[in-house]
Amino acid sequence: MSLLVVGTVALDSVKTPFGEARDVLGGSATYFATAASYFTRVRLVAVVGRDFPEEHLRFLKTKEIDLAGLQILEGQTFRWRGEYGFQLNEARTLETRLNVLERFLPILPASYRGSEMIFLGNIDPVLQQEVLSQVEKPRLVACDTMNFWIEGKRDELERTLKQVDIVIINDGEARELADEANLVTAAKKILSNGPKTLIIKRGEYGVLMFNEKTAFAAPAYPLEAVFDPTGAGDSFAGGFMGYLTQSGDLSEAGIRRAVIFGSVMASFNVESFSLDRLRRLTRREIDDRYREFGRLTSFEDLKAI
Amino acid sequence: MSLLVVGTVALDSVKTPFGEARDVLGGSATYFATAASYFTRVRLVAVVGRDFPEEHLRFLKTKEIDLAGLQILEGQTFRWRGEYGFQLNEARTLETRLNVLERFLPILPASYRGSEMIFLGNIDPVLQQEVLSQVEKPRLVACDTMNFWIEGKRDELERTLKQVDIVIINDGEARELADEANLVTAAKKILSNGPKTLIIKRGEYGVLMFNEKTAFAAPAYPLEAVFDPTGAGDSFAGGFMGYLTQSGDLSEAGIRRAVIFGSVMASFNVESFSLDRLRRLTRREIDDRYREFGRLTSFEDLKAI
Repeated sequence: MSLLVVGTVALDSVKTPFGEARDVLGGSATYFATAASYFTRVRLVAVVGRDFPEEHLRFLKTKEIDLAGLQILEGQTFRWRGEYGFQLNEARTLETRLNVLERFLPILPASYRGSEMIFLGNIDPVLQQEVLSQVEKPRLVACDTMNFWIEGKRDELERTLKQVDIVIINDGEARELADEANLVTAAKKILSNGPKTLIIKRGEYGVLMFNEKTAFAAPAYPLEAVFDPTGAGDSFAGGFMGYLTQSGDLSEAGIRRAVIFGSVMASFNVESFSLDRLRRLTRREIDDRYREFGRLTSFEDLKAI
Repeated sequence: MSLLVVGTVALDSVKTPFGEARDVLGGSATYFATAASYFTRVRLVAVVGRDFPEEHLRFLKTKEIDLAGLQILEGQTFRWRGEYGFQLNEARTLETRLNVLERFLPILPASYRGSEMIFLGNIDPVLQQEVLSQVEKPRLVACDTMNFWIEGKRDELERTLKQVDIVIINDGEARELADEANLVTAAKKILSNGPKTLIIKRGEYGVLMFNEKTAFAAPAYPLEAVFDPTGAGDSFAGGFMGYLTQSGDLSEAGIRRAVIFGSVMASFNVESFSLDRLRRLTRREIDDRYREFGRLTSFEDLKAI
């Protein structure tokens, strides 16, 4: 199967209690595609400016990411500047310069239109629908969003949600989207409006997944050193969709395993700044940590009760 | 095996966004013993005043809780008044009246001294040690504590910790005890000072358990209606120690299963005010929810990867 992602490619400046990085490679589509590249080839749809460093393009190509859908426009690349306190769960955005992103109109190359697995990164829901209208017959569509769109473009966002199978958002976004404090109730409400599966990311507390019938809880991998949480959610989505694309198993069991692979990729990502840790992973390290998640969560297969 | 608990028996007044209860049965030893009573007989060490309602004593007896160690002193029973906001994870204490608790000196009846499983509830660490000095040869000792003792009686608390096998505290307490923000690092530090196992309660985010070699993560049961979190931690400890006492299996596997039984009891407890839900449980409901925890967390035994 083939996997397509639309989202941002950015230059990030990030400060955490453990250090600082300036104008490093970032963006939702970048994290997603790099994480997913360990499982499958990824077709990327995004925009950068003429200032976008050639070395980053070379890096993405080493991961065999298809850049036919990457537009390079006159002007500057999208820039994000933020910082984290010791409570690493939430970023404080200090500055957002949209630059070429303001003129972004996703146009899919002909070679992308048959893509079967689609991830709509966190961009304007109007653009998310624009992408969907250009793919022929997707087998599974997942999307992310954020408070900015929930508050500012709710109608358009709800139109997107009716066309997706899986929503991947964080707990605050789920509560705001459903206008409901209890997460279980919020999940029911969101699932009654279109998507079949809701995945709620809770940072250091892991992931909750809901569908019509069941719930699944996955912990975050307990890490002694979290250096930079930027891109954790997108790395999760990349591992999740990458594994689903590779396995082709869209059953409940397959989706649960994909949640763990997503959690594995997010856990690696936060160990270094930018994509430094994701860059130099091996599939073996990924599979080892997947098995560690098994040891981290098992209580019943150790011995009959 | 035999299980002994020392802690408080209280009359609580609690306000949550969903209602209010005045002078209802509460206290760490009460929640612990009631939860544990579904697995084993419990020997209780605590104090109440002459005003303590006879009906509560009758209730504890219906759960076959041994009250030989319950002192009834002249004066009023310990009272706690608190409230919760919509963020149900943390209680705001409005009033604490120690009353007879100020004069509490735990004295173990002769029939208690051979107890093998000991839970030292959240009381003055000096009193925790007093209890330990009166038991002959415990097989396993677990304890709870709180910020008040971490800040006010650190030396005495550290002396207690050197004598216990398992510490059961919440994430804020673990961070404060270790003076360390990262939970994994905090756990290592706490384990280097005595206890073999550390269980960190994280409310709606479940439980993390650490020993020298492994980590275990258990989610909280996703509930649509959380009415009153009071006693959740003590119900957890009661289910945990109750199951360990019943099974006698103190292996890693046995302790992991005990964590799930603890989580089951905590999940029931928060469904109603005071002990209203714990009172009327059946062992079958408990075992059913235990199995639901299996469905909630499994990803590997569904099918080979």
